[in-house]
Amino acid sequence: MTAPNRNTLWARALVDELARNGVTAACVSPGSRSTPLTVAFAEHEEIRVFSHLDERAAAYFALGRARRTGEVTPLVCTSGTAAANYHPAILEADQSRVPLLALTADRPPELRDSGANQTADQEKLYGDAVRWYKDLPEPEAEARKLRSLRTTVTRALAEAEGTDPGPVHLNCPFRKPLEPVEVPEDVPEDLETLAAEGRESDGSAAPAGGAGGVGQGSSVPAFVERRQGTPELPDHEIRAVAEDLGVERGLIVAGPADPHEVDPEAVVALAHATGFPILADPLSGLRFGGHTRVAPVLGGYDAYLDEAVTSDWPDPEAVLRVGASPTSKPLRKYLARIGAQQMVVDPAGKWREAEFTASDLVVADPSRLSEALSRVVTGPDSADWRALWADAEQTHWDAVDAHEDLFEGGIVADAVAEAPEPTTLFVSNSMPVRDLDRFTQPSPDAVTALGNRGVSGIDGITSTALGAGSATTDHLTLVIGDLAYYHDMNGLLAVARCEVDATIVLINNDGGGIFHMLPIESFNPPFTGQFKTPHGIDFEPSTDLYGLDYEQVESRNGFVDAYSAAVASEGTTVVEVVTDAADSHEIRDRLREQVVDELAGESTD
Amino acid sequence: MTAPNRNTLWARALVDELARNGVTAACVSPGSRSTPLTVAFAEHEEIRVFSHLDERAAAYFALGRARRTGEVTPLVCTSGTAAANYHPAILEADQSRVPLLALTADRPPELRDSGANQTADQEKLYGDAVRWYKDLPEPEAEARKLRSLRTTVTRALAEAEGTDPGPVHLNCPFRKPLEPVEVPEDVPEDLETLAAEGRESDGSAAPAGGAGGVGQGSSVPAFVERRQGTPELPDHEIRAVAEDLGVERGLIVAGPADPHEVDPEAVVALAHATGFPILADPLSGLRFGGHTRVAPVLGGYDAYLDEAVTSDWPDPEAVLRVGASPTSKPLRKYLARIGAQQMVVDPAGKWREAEFTASDLVVADPSRLSEALSRVVTGPDSADWRALWADAEQTHWDAVDAHEDLFEGGIVADAVAEAPEPTTLFVSNSMPVRDLDRFTQPSPDAVTALGNRGVSGIDGITSTALGAGSATTDHLTLVIGDLAYYHDMNGLLAVARCEVDATIVLINNDGGGIFHMLPIESFNPPFTGQFKTPHGIDFEPSTDLYGLDYEQVESRNGFVDAYSAAVASEGTTVVEVVTDAADSHEIRDRLREQVVDELAGESTD
Repeated sequence: MTAPNRNTLWARALVDELARNGVTAACVSPGSRSTPLTVAFAEHEEIRVFSHLDERAAAYFALGRARRTGEVTPLVCTSGTAAANYHPAILEADQSRVPLLALTADRPPELRDSGANQTADQEKLYGDAVRWYKDLPEPEAEARKLRSLRTTVTRALAEAEGTDPGPVHLNCPFRKPLEPVEVPEDVPEDLETLAAEGRESDGSAAPAGGAGGVGQGSSVPAFVERRQGTPELPDHEIRAVAEDLGVERGLIVAGPADPHEVDPEAVVALAHATGFPILADPLSGLRFGGHTRVAPVLGGYDAYLDEAVTSDWPDPEAVLRVGASPTSKPLRKYLARIGAQQMVVDPAGKWREAEFTASDLVVADPSRLSEALSRVVTGPDSADWRALWADAEQTHWDAVDAHEDLFEGGIVADAVAEAPEPTTLFVSNSMPVRDLDRFTQPSPDAVTALGNRGVSGIDGITSTALGAGSATTDHLTLVIGDLAYYHDMNGLLAVARCEVDATIVLINNDGGGIFHMLPIESFNPPFTGQFKTPHGIDFEPSTDLYGLDYEQVESRNGFVDAYSAAVASEGTTVVEVVTDAADSHEIRDRLREQVVDELAGESTD
Repeated sequence: MTAPNRNTLWARALVDELARNGVTAACVSPGSRSTPLTVAFAEHEEIRVFSHLDERAAAYFALGRARRTGEVTPLVCTSGTAAANYHPAILEADQSRVPLLALTADRPPELRDSGANQTADQEKLYGDAVRWYKDLPEPEAEARKLRSLRTTVTRALAEAEGTDPGPVHLNCPFRKPLEPVEVPEDVPEDLETLAAEGRESDGSAAPAGGAGGVGQGSSVPAFVERRQGTPELPDHEIRAVAEDLGVERGLIVAGPADPHEVDPEAVVALAHATGFPILADPLSGLRFGGHTRVAPVLGGYDAYLDEAVTSDWPDPEAVLRVGASPTSKPLRKYLARIGAQQMVVDPAGKWREAEFTASDLVVADPSRLSEALSRVVTGPDSADWRALWADAEQTHWDAVDAHEDLFEGGIVADAVAEAPEPTTLFVSNSMPVRDLDRFTQPSPDAVTALGNRGVSGIDGITSTALGAGSATTDHLTLVIGDLAYYHDMNGLLAVARCEVDATIVLINNDGGGIFHMLPIESFNPPFTGQFKTPHGIDFEPSTDLYGLDYEQVESRNGFVDAYSAAVASEGTTVVEVVTDAADSHEIRDRLREQVVDELAGESTD
């Protein structure tokens, strides 16, 4: 294949290098300035192109895919506001360490700040939220520049998928012609081959096809091969940490972490070696899975870690924290008031503990550290300590199981209980993730639970879920509140357009249910008008708009039936459960009080 | 009224100072961290609060309102991704000089970059796109700090509504309690009055109500009164410019400008004084209005300014440009190839002319300059020159009028022709604004035509239109393409929620019609899949979702009837016209060729 002009050549080299580095999909939005990139992605046989009309949804879709896989799904958009629509997802990717690569087309330099159409200042558009920003040079059919481009691609992926994964932004100026039209003498013939080749040392790397090696895909070695290390402690430091953990009463706190961030098996091995229970955030990768059959995985802490209960408990002596800060506020407050040595393990050396009570920052890969520690740690028997927690857990789950009436927490629990295996489960902020935390018992089910807990926005949830679903053959269930559903209704277009099926559980309490949990509830006005903000939307037409099936249910049995039917059916169904936010909140409170009373009563008996 | 805590006091002072400076409305999205601001806006009797669930739509709504009025409508959102959703509208506001004020709630400093929930780096979130950024100090019940806050508010408005209007970002940290709960001794009693008062010199300024003067509204003088000057040339420079314009053949080119930017009467006065025709962009404020009865306002240039026509015309000697760079590419190319002295008049001293052929940058307020010039300019008679243009215009409008078949340009023209008076007309990118430019004859109708031509995105259009509509008692018509309609479908919630009625003309050609105008049309694939991107959405359910009336039409007569009925009816109607983009593009081409052939033929006769 020959490149008809320098833009085509340049974009093909960029896309080819992404493919050689393992990229298999891209999210592209229609636009003119981005034509060279769009054409190069579309013509590459080994890259699947997801076409999105709303760039905000596109970015969240790519985020979801990357969250599920740990691998970049590049984004392509035209110049101007299109690029700014990526910003919300980029903030989420930054905070939750999801690799993203935004390729934003731009005008050539002389047209910036000149009144030229559809031109904004895209330089460092996402500020410090990206791991790396580069304004690419203008395309040129010159060997060194093309090598520089391929090197830049590898570096972008290394930054995005490195020890501190996150978003990267490459701004890509192009001047006309943007289409693959023949421009005589724009690309010297002898140059093309040179630019497309891998290292000469690997004879098989030279693609037969010429420039860009389009169609060669990932079978061709990258121009620069990446190998990624992770921070590991030296042996004497591992022994020191192991010694700190050689106590009777300890905890492993597993906060939100995507599948590629923490290996559950390694953490379980450490739990076995130390005898410590694992307080497993529902998004930690540890709440669900076969290991829960044998490891002491706890999930009820959000209900029973009340001061009335824990004031009579002995403090833990050591706490090891992996992943992000836990979703549960009672857990965070508990960790803040105990006197334990508390180690935050973070491969990127960042501090993800906003109570500032942790005593140790351990800069190391959590999986490798856990594995290494599990081989050397020894300590006293922790059976009594585990029993204390196991009893609290049992009390909580008994209370939850005994409550059979409709409330939001029960719907979330039922969805998880009835989910087929394997399931990728996505939960929205702000209540579904909290309900998942409190009402979903650790289970051996093959459930990969994900959420956008980096910045905890209610935007882009549907798109993120569908992006995650696009990367797996798992069943996909999304549990979403009505505000989040409304916010990213555009994201539903991806069901048909990107061929992702899902079962969508829409918990509709007509407004911001979370505000019932906050003191503002007592100030009305403005509570109803400005916080609860009922919208009264009948969402059924949204399913007509996007060709989805729709069921509305009013009871838990009804939900279980409708959910199971939706899972079994072809296509995507929205199962809407209409709830009363204040009622659900009362039930949450009542169940919590019941558990706390029972446990606090026990200890004073 | 007493302030129960420092956050309440602080937010009331901020909102009070906005009201005293003339702010009458705000767009607020629900959130927790922003509670002090939301409560203060909600309780202020003289500020209308528009509640928006999608912050992207909120920002565009505020943009539309500010575009129509020239006055800031503040935005309030919670911390995190919510703030990033403002970014697209902020880019548009920057480039099209619309005042905006983003008040983003934030965590207190120690919680930033700590793993705290819903916390992103909001410092300078919008980069160089804002005129001013300030991270407010933490609220304190201290007189000097409160004076500083009120001064900051005035300064923010001065920056936003100044000579180079645009967005301003105030990041607002708050620590709990966020609600107006009583915090004993948080606000000293003697301080409150001090903070609320205006200058002592104005006895009437001291509000009786205490802190924040809530309910006092704009009848209370601002703490700092603003008076805004604009750049004016000294007399000898005005005489020099007038001399340059004292030629036979000149043009006034009026590019896109919002109502507050350029006074049509002043430009018309200059046209009369010079004898020059006005090439009036449809968004310039000069295409429509009573002045077109007497002033030589031209609107057909996009069709006839072809080299085949103009190569036989004498070049103009002088061109005076006001407003932004014109929408019409043929006009821009014409201005680039003529040898005229070309003056770009810009009050902000920016260069809005991307062909770089203008010879003079005149930093002055365009209205005051036009007025001053019209008093002193003298020159030879320009009747022949005007006749040349008038003839071309007539040829074009005759051709347009003779074409009665359905095509997109005709729909836009019919919508304008049938609009009741006065109408605020909003047109989307990318084809409707171009069709408005080419197919809508200058007319004395009271039509205020607006569009988002700063960055020319297809996002946020519906919200911008409804925001504009919220600021006026005009009838509101929105002409929008299907991609733009899809992109901002969420914006339709404002019809009910913000009580704005509109007639929405949805031109549905199932995808990106503009790409038929570009060379990529000949490359298929990827043309259909990645550029045209047909979505096949049946939009009728979107009207059920938002409680709108719906009509679909298939002919121009049908459109005129449906449009007139929609205008006459209560509430908001979507009138959908299904068109074929390729057909419409052919008709545009054919009409243009016909006009060019006729005019080129004339001159070679």
